[in-house]
Amino acid sequence: MRRLLIKNAKALVGTFPTGTARVAGAAMAQLPVIENGWLMAEDGRITALGSMSDFPGIADWSDLTVIDATGRYVLPGWCDPHTHTVFAAPREEEFVDKINGLTYQEIAARGGGILNSAMKLRAMSQDDLFAQARERLLVMMHQGTVAVEIKSGYGLTLESELKMLRVAKRLKAELPLQVKTTLLAAHALPPEFKEDRAGYLDLICNMMIPQVAAEGLADFVDVFCETNYFTVAEMERVLETGAKHGLPGKVHVNQFTSIGAIQAAVKHGALSVDHLEVMTEADITTLAAASLAPGPAPAPFPTLLPSCSFFLRIPYAPARQLIDSGLPVALASDHNPGSTPSGNLNLVLSLACIQLRMLPQEAITALTMNAAAAMQLEAELGGLTIGKRASLLITREVPSLAYLPYAFGTDHLDTVLIDGKPVRSGEVLR
Amino acid sequence: MRRLLIKNAKALVGTFPTGTARVAGAAMAQLPVIENGWLMAEDGRITALGSMSDFPGIADWSDLTVIDATGRYVLPGWCDPHTHTVFAAPREEEFVDKINGLTYQEIAARGGGILNSAMKLRAMSQDDLFAQARERLLVMMHQGTVAVEIKSGYGLTLESELKMLRVAKRLKAELPLQVKTTLLAAHALPPEFKEDRAGYLDLICNMMIPQVAAEGLADFVDVFCETNYFTVAEMERVLETGAKHGLPGKVHVNQFTSIGAIQAAVKHGALSVDHLEVMTEADITTLAAASLAPGPAPAPFPTLLPSCSFFLRIPYAPARQLIDSGLPVALASDHNPGSTPSGNLNLVLSLACIQLRMLPQEAITALTMNAAAAMQLEAELGGLTIGKRASLLITREVPSLAYLPYAFGTDHLDTVLIDGKPVRSGEVLR
Repeated sequence: MRRLLIKNAKALVGTFPTGTARVAGAAMAQLPVIENGWLMAEDGRITALGSMSDFPGIADWSDLTVIDATGRYVLPGWCDPHTHTVFAAPREEEFVDKINGLTYQEIAARGGGILNSAMKLRAMSQDDLFAQARERLLVMMHQGTVAVEIKSGYGLTLESELKMLRVAKRLKAELPLQVKTTLLAAHALPPEFKEDRAGYLDLICNMMIPQVAAEGLADFVDVFCETNYFTVAEMERVLETGAKHGLPGKVHVNQFTSIGAIQAAVKHGALSVDHLEVMTEADITTLAAASLAPGPAPAPFPTLLPSCSFFLRIPYAPARQLIDSGLPVALASDHNPGSTPSGNLNLVLSLACIQLRMLPQEAITALTMNAAAAMQLEAELGGLTIGKRASLLITREVPSLAYLPYAFGTDHLDTVLIDGKPVRSGEVLR
Repeated sequence: MRRLLIKNAKALVGTFPTGTARVAGAAMAQLPVIENGWLMAEDGRITALGSMSDFPGIADWSDLTVIDATGRYVLPGWCDPHTHTVFAAPREEEFVDKINGLTYQEIAARGGGILNSAMKLRAMSQDDLFAQARERLLVMMHQGTVAVEIKSGYGLTLESELKMLRVAKRLKAELPLQVKTTLLAAHALPPEFKEDRAGYLDLICNMMIPQVAAEGLADFVDVFCETNYFTVAEMERVLETGAKHGLPGKVHVNQFTSIGAIQAAVKHGALSVDHLEVMTEADITTLAAASLAPGPAPAPFPTLLPSCSFFLRIPYAPARQLIDSGLPVALASDHNPGSTPSGNLNLVLSLACIQLRMLPQEAITALTMNAAAAMQLEAELGGLTIGKRASLLITREVPSLAYLPYAFGTDHLDTVLIDGKPVRSGEVLR
């Protein structure tokens, strides 16, 4: 049996009660914490924790790794419920084109954008895709990410979408972090269907979703529901088909325009509505009403992606209004080569506080408990709770929890554990 | 003799010709590069470099450290010509106050702001200040900073300003990076002189500047010239007094308002004008005219601090207009506990490209050659040039130079050398 004891932690942060599934509104700032704490894990699961003043002692010290975390915080590992981390190549040439003043249309005319990624991905072997994505995930694990959702959406053919999801499945098998996968065939209209939208929707709903579900390749379905991409009616069709095959929806909505996607996502019981940079009062009211309504079907998590706003220089989502309306905000990286070439959730923590005006406690809740739940991992991750995976962050010596987002752009992590095993060893584990 | 050979570099970047002192306007994008290069250093100085196709071979391999930089870029180390890195304590509690909606006035009334830092600094011993600043500089060196300017300005008494500069002097003596120091007594009006502005200016000009100059404690003088801080006339008095004592000016101007400070700084031959978030056409015209005018006295470097704009959510400086007007833009971190709790120049590189719309080549020029020159280190640092210090960055394997700012928030450095010695050893030096 592998046993781990962390003692003298400055605080255990995020000690959510067993059974917590979402933390909404004002409760997000009430991050549960045990000052001066200890935590035990056995075979990768948290088995006990408490305050040092009540430390019961250890009878059997054999096979026990002991970490003295004096001056350091222990947090649940970051969860990233929205990424596009499997892709064929970065797109820094488009970044330079944009600085040079080219418009989105001009870049698209040069073969840029999502279709650029699609053409490169279709041409790349599954092994090469895997090797590249693996490197990216190793960096993200080093930055504290212990669970990640990965979307398809750069294939846009049956074969290439399956290829992406198989790469994600192999990443799940070979890397220690938790991986959830999402079929995002409705990411852009592929050139082959330029004159046949309905035909592509048929392909998604009649071929891709059934096959992906049958092979167990995806946990969720997604649609880029946006002006000039997919309509609300098209999103509804994908969500309905997904539901029939047991795949809940996690959808891209309200990034550039508000076109009724929130209302439709609520109606279809989507697990999360992601982006939300452009929200009307009605959109927020709809989400809040759904969240407060009694009944078995919880409302979607609003999942915000501040790194995307930062990189594209578009508005930030109205996080304060969402939280103040009683909603359970989650945060994610949106890691992708076009709009967010960064998977660093520590920077997302800073962006959430600096730009979204979230309190440090709210942002930590959004990157742990709510982020885990926004990909249905709430029973496994998201809190320092007995029975959950011992996927933990141990910080360097820092003066306060608020220091983590405040001192932006500096690496505050010392050690990262996934299922009790170090994926990054700092001072306390050297 | 310590000898170092770096070979097979994907490119040597920033191979500025000997004698380069500033790179202005369109030339900033013409970053000189040697593809597939090699570089030799002896006793911490660059002695030779070139393309691998012309590699002359090595006769004597004794005492030679060889680095194979295949797939990696070699760049001059980052220079940081504007920081406040000696301070007593971070101020994350004010950061949280601001998220909670407190105004600047309310925070000041609680004892926040520059005077908060001053009260804490006055109470702290020189040794404690040194130990804290040392830790910060070690982090910055790890992030690629090889030279740093450090300002006083949290003392605001003769004794405490001297204490800060003595700490900086000790940092210069004990750490390998280059340190330049600046007397910023005119940072805020201390409470003791609340009703006697002229008295504080007398103290600065009659006591502090002479003593600091006599003891060799500072290289430059600085003034926070801004509405509600120090007037243009007050700045002029400090610049004149500094000049008499051989201390050129590096001044805070145009952060919140344009009040004629640029014109005055040009008139007094300031070395750099820093911040520049709020610039009128006349301000830019004045700077550009001075920069293009013939004569021995070069115009001030416009030194931009995008991390400060990011953290305070104030406008970004008009970098494009400045460069397009023919000016030699420099970049710096502004590292300080109030407005910029980050000294990471890699993030400044990303902010420069993402938010200031600088091309990657322009931003690299601004963080190397122009940043070095903005603290009079152009003969020592800022380029891969024979005779300069071998203070170098070796990147990880990255696909292109543009990838460095594009893939923001991820650490792209492998190894950092200062005067040929590793301050951070990655794969190539392990």
